[in-house]
Amino acid sequence: MRRIIVLTGNGKGKTTSAIGACVRALGKGFNVKFYQFIKSKDVSYGEHEFFTGIVRLGLGCRKDFKYGDKDKKAALDGLKRISTELAKIKTKGAGTLCILDEVSYPINWKWFKASEVSKIIKKNSKVNFILTGRDMPKELIKLADTVSEVKEIKHAYQKGCKAQKGIEF
Amino acid sequence: MRRIIVLTGNGKGKTTSAIGACVRALGKGFNVKFYQFIKSKDVSYGEHEFFTGIVRLGLGCRKDFKYGDKDKKAALDGLKRISTELAKIKTKGAGTLCILDEVSYPINWKWFKASEVSKIIKKNSKVNFILTGRDMPKELIKLADTVSEVKEIKHAYQKGCKAQKGIEF
Repeated sequence: MRRIIVLTGNGKGKTTSAIGACVRALGKGFNVKFYQFIKSKDVSYGEHEFFTGIVRLGLGCRKDFKYGDKDKKAALDGLKRISTELAKIKTKGAGTLCILDEVSYPINWKWFKASEVSKIIKKNSKVNFILTGRDMPKELIKLADTVSEVKEIKHAYQKGCKAQKGIEF
Repeated sequence: MRRIIVLTGNGKGKTTSAIGACVRALGKGFNVKFYQFIKSKDVSYGEHEFFTGIVRLGLGCRKDFKYGDKDKKAALDGLKRISTELAKIKTKGAGTLCILDEVSYPINWKWFKASEVSKIIKKNSKVNFILTGRDMPKELIKLADTVSEVKEIKHAYQKGCKAQKGIEF
């Protein structure tokens, strides 16, 4: 059975969990496709320095959350790219894992619909998917077989600690 | 500021998040020490095939949870080993990350005390720590600066799906 896993909630550990899942799948010989909707090429996170294959579709993670038309276009182009690339995958061998990191944001900003993501997931019926992001749309939660909510109990940010290299990025 | 992060709760994604954190830290040139208290050398998870450096201290993850004296000894020896190995680390350069995976179990089984783990964390004051496991003892939650609870909303196991290669192991 192919798997559809959702990692949602406001706590630290969703994207890092997806990176870990990527390691586990690679260790078992899976073909892994890793798409990030928000992270841009401007900032290099530890995972980008470790894995060169992570595809950053977004134009940037803005602190002020002021995303515009260019960002929307990048996300829409990204969705098309995912659809095209998955169609080319031959799901022979160990298996395929596709990670859609922070995919809930462009949906919640109404850049594209949850149904467009569902369509890609349903079409690629042999591909395992991991979807991450806060406030995951109900349609995708319903579609998933496994859903974890990462809740923030406390975070160093609350005490004024800044994001730290090697930990947060 | 060095960080102490706890990943607890009953949901899927705690160990995988620690593996992801390991990737991020390695990408930034950190020295990473990864200790697993429960996983044994008998079963090779994807992460073990990807990273040869993960130290498995436990004798085995038993489905029946019937752990005995030999397991207890392995955990106690493991704790000593961690203490000794961390003492040798020179915390120069980018930084050090130490992962204590599933450390809550031996504590909750009363094999060793939470205070023994706190002591190691306090003694190695420049080392970043990530602790994972269900029912993390309060003392360690209090000590941490960042705590995430991974809650299971649903899991494929509930529908009778077995653990799958490349996903769960």
